[in-house]
Amino acid sequence: MDALKTNERTKGKNARAKKAGYAIKGRLWIEGKSGTFIGFGRVVLLERVRRYGSITNAAKSMKISYRHAWELVDSMNSQSKKPLVKTATGGKNGGGAKLTETGHAAIVEFWTLYKKLARFLEKENANLKF
Amino acid sequence: MDALKTNERTKGKNARAKKAGYAIKGRLWIEGKSGTFIGFGRVVLLERVRRYGSITNAAKSMKISYRHAWELVDSMNSQSKKPLVKTATGGKNGGGAKLTETGHAAIVEFWTLYKKLARFLEKENANLKF
Repeated sequence: MDALKTNERTKGKNARAKKAGYAIKGRLWIEGKSGTFIGFGRVVLLERVRRYGSITNAAKSMKISYRHAWELVDSMNSQSKKPLVKTATGGKNGGGAKLTETGHAAIVEFWTLYKKLARFLEKENANLKF
Repeated sequence: MDALKTNERTKGKNARAKKAGYAIKGRLWIEGKSGTFIGFGRVVLLERVRRYGSITNAAKSMKISYRHAWELVDSMNSQSKKPLVKTATGGKNGGGAKLTETGHAAIVEFWTLYKKLARFLEKENANLKF
């Protein structure tokens, strides 16, 4: 699932909820040994690395600095038993970056959780006593 | 329920989850016509107004400025059909502030939602595939 599509879906739901007056919103993330392990922005970054095959281009597409993107990838890799992103140093273009199986699985796991949260919020929204 | 107790309870759960490696965290808030209507901090503020009977003392107890507290109260009141907090201007101590029935109900409703989210996160934590 693409993050953009998720956002659009969520927007549609929120627009409907808004008409009723209030909308319960929520977010979730997964913490590891040293703080955030995976959250919305980090998963989008993983998706961009998958698409562009490099941290540099993934960072550009998200309008964040290479340094920040690299730190996020490093934070994910260092909190996981197996790395989520593999980087190749050197080469013509300074190497590329690839998702590992763990990286692919993390994307799926996060969006699955995210959809469950969306369903939870939708249900609670329907019961909201305001 | 007191916010402090909720925090302590959550801390205990998180500590146990941490041992297993990862912990799913989340938060929720209710949006109204003009952005956030009720969230964690706002509900704590309502509880402090209930306890201290004035926005000034509620603000002091939370180490936020009177102005900020007043803006939060104003934002809640203006997004609700009925106000959550009633202020009395004038008098010896510049009047006080009291929760209305709606204000009391908002506290209960928010902590109920919050506990449901905590249960949801706990359940998902047990199923986490990392």
